[in-house]
Amino acid sequence: MTTINIPADSLFGLDNLPYGVFSPAGGAPRVGVRVGDSVIDLAVALGDSVFSEPTLNAFMAQGRDRWVSVRNQISELATGEIPSDAVFSSDSVEMHLPIAVADYVDFYASENHATNLGRLFRPDSAPLMPNWKHLPVGYHGRSSTVVVSGTDIIRPCGQRKSPDQANPDFGPSRRLDIEAEMGFIVGTPSKMGDSITPDEFADHVFGAVVVNDWSARDIQAWEYVPLGPNLGKSFATSISPWVVPLLALEAARIDTPVQDPEPLPYLRGEEKWGLDIDLAVEWNGHVVSRPPYAQMYWSPAQMLAHTTINGAVASTGDLFASGTISGPEKNQRGAFIELTWGGKEPVAVGDETRTFLEDGDVISISATAPAAGGSRIGFGEVSARILPATQADR
Amino acid sequence: MTTINIPADSLFGLDNLPYGVFSPAGGAPRVGVRVGDSVIDLAVALGDSVFSEPTLNAFMAQGRDRWVSVRNQISELATGEIPSDAVFSSDSVEMHLPIAVADYVDFYASENHATNLGRLFRPDSAPLMPNWKHLPVGYHGRSSTVVVSGTDIIRPCGQRKSPDQANPDFGPSRRLDIEAEMGFIVGTPSKMGDSITPDEFADHVFGAVVVNDWSARDIQAWEYVPLGPNLGKSFATSISPWVVPLLALEAARIDTPVQDPEPLPYLRGEEKWGLDIDLAVEWNGHVVSRPPYAQMYWSPAQMLAHTTINGAVASTGDLFASGTISGPEKNQRGAFIELTWGGKEPVAVGDETRTFLEDGDVISISATAPAAGGSRIGFGEVSARILPATQADR
Repeated sequence: MTTINIPADSLFGLDNLPYGVFSPAGGAPRVGVRVGDSVIDLAVALGDSVFSEPTLNAFMAQGRDRWVSVRNQISELATGEIPSDAVFSSDSVEMHLPIAVADYVDFYASENHATNLGRLFRPDSAPLMPNWKHLPVGYHGRSSTVVVSGTDIIRPCGQRKSPDQANPDFGPSRRLDIEAEMGFIVGTPSKMGDSITPDEFADHVFGAVVVNDWSARDIQAWEYVPLGPNLGKSFATSISPWVVPLLALEAARIDTPVQDPEPLPYLRGEEKWGLDIDLAVEWNGHVVSRPPYAQMYWSPAQMLAHTTINGAVASTGDLFASGTISGPEKNQRGAFIELTWGGKEPVAVGDETRTFLEDGDVISISATAPAAGGSRIGFGEVSARILPATQADR
Repeated sequence: MTTINIPADSLFGLDNLPYGVFSPAGGAPRVGVRVGDSVIDLAVALGDSVFSEPTLNAFMAQGRDRWVSVRNQISELATGEIPSDAVFSSDSVEMHLPIAVADYVDFYASENHATNLGRLFRPDSAPLMPNWKHLPVGYHGRSSTVVVSGTDIIRPCGQRKSPDQANPDFGPSRRLDIEAEMGFIVGTPSKMGDSITPDEFADHVFGAVVVNDWSARDIQAWEYVPLGPNLGKSFATSISPWVVPLLALEAARIDTPVQDPEPLPYLRGEEKWGLDIDLAVEWNGHVVSRPPYAQMYWSPAQMLAHTTINGAVASTGDLFASGTISGPEKNQRGAFIELTWGGKEPVAVGDETRTFLEDGDVISISATAPAAGGSRIGFGEVSARILPATQADR
């Protein structure tokens, strides 16, 4: 038997207890929970085969009562004696995609981001579309290209057409960008034909991750009318490996900004589901932006209510992301197209400057949130390196 | 032992041999092949447990050589003696969703449809966007709401705003519509970072189905800028139960219409993948439209090449649909918003008239294609009844 030492300033203390899928050297992927700098193998520690699965989906599908009960069991484990073969150093394990992604929907819930993008993509029109303050605008993304932090991102190729070109050409994206977002994962499914109210959010949503929704702005700008982004986004979306349970975010719950006009009744609830989460974007090890999730106009509870109001089913493993998080200040913008104003205002990255991503660049996005008693919990980070294009000769 | 009688005029003759997932009374779903008015239980007839699965995915993932070899085995079975317990009447079995849908992408590949919709949705602009003839425009739809023919469709609720309203209201869609399409199903996956050329189409695509991409036009018109359709489409997409193998469509292969300007090299191929498929749309038993797939501007091989040119993986079970098929004539339009010109020109449906769908209406879309020797093969039909809205009080 052993005990787990939790450093006093750890972002993975007992208030957090996030779930992930890990493999020790030579072992198969299985479900673990992060405590301090340790990972507890839950199948071994709790003797339940649902944690021997290579994704969290089977456990997430068991529902909220079960999530509460397992969280209580883990709290006891982490403060007492635990079998030595159930504990690994977090440095020694490989992390995997924690969920089998069912549907992936990406929203557009930051007023600052939507306004900035509107100005950049449609300079001759009002930046916010008339629908934007009436519904959380979102679109479906590609589930099969959601990857875990640490997976290299190959620069995508596609059709590019700058305003001075008569016709598009083909080649590697020259405006490869990030979008710093939070993502929410459905555990308890709904039935087709039903809808989930904003106040039923916590019955359905298991937890949250940090998301980097990679975006090839040149491909996107040419392709996206009238049916929305496709190839400019579908090559990859990265998520952090540790799923922070919604149960760990009680102290982070705040009101959203005032919503004016008042949303339609199906988007209203009594529960607060704004979230006081602070993100930090590191470019080659240098923090270039600190997007504040607290500023997001639409709450994740409203996003899920909207997604299901037409009777669409929510499935275990559904991932929905907030869209880029941008605050009102320049150094709070969560996408480089905003931070560099369409590439016209390069930013300092250490001793260098950047507009969009170069091959070899490394992006890490991390997030933290308040916990009980003034301490903080961490989401860890979503990190990836850009590799050169491979399809440039097609 | 028994033998299978194939009626002389059957659309399910030996040239077709489509796969589906069926259950006999009291039995579990399993893989079958349709021959005449019979269904062969392949797990029993071929003694291979891959056909005991409740979807085609495991078989589809085995690749093209295997698809050819099983097709040859089935041809022999269907013309010889076959164990009696491997044969069911097609009337006696229940059909299920034949695939576990991975990613679902819907294209917009009919020039007539895109032009008509552009005129209706954006009357003050050029109907075709500048990108339309350079790339097959498409977007990701909701995989979890793809349902098999025969599943009732509940009228969706959502935000509606007509031009004379200052603000949106909430309620059941008043402009519920169909889109008659063909869908293509990926069997052999690609690797992330790779792309599939148009001439590699038949190595990856297993077969085709008829698709009805239900569309709530009032919800769609209000929500779709700038990120594309979401709630107006995500409530349901219906597919026909029998997957016609690409191997059965050799006689249907034709050139696409002339593509001018010439597409970029990654969208060019030597193989012909236009398809001479005739569809028929029945509204409450009356044929109201006969959309010709032969008119589609972009081929399905170009759609798949475009989907993967940015390195996005194609997965076993991916479904990609053509978008509404509309020919140049009014009675060839595959969506009612076109057929009734935005609801302004009602159509006769038997003794009644219609603009959009009413509760209780039944839509059946069928398709046939030429086979060798002047005969034809059938896709069967995708059929559903509209049920009243259930979320109208939210």
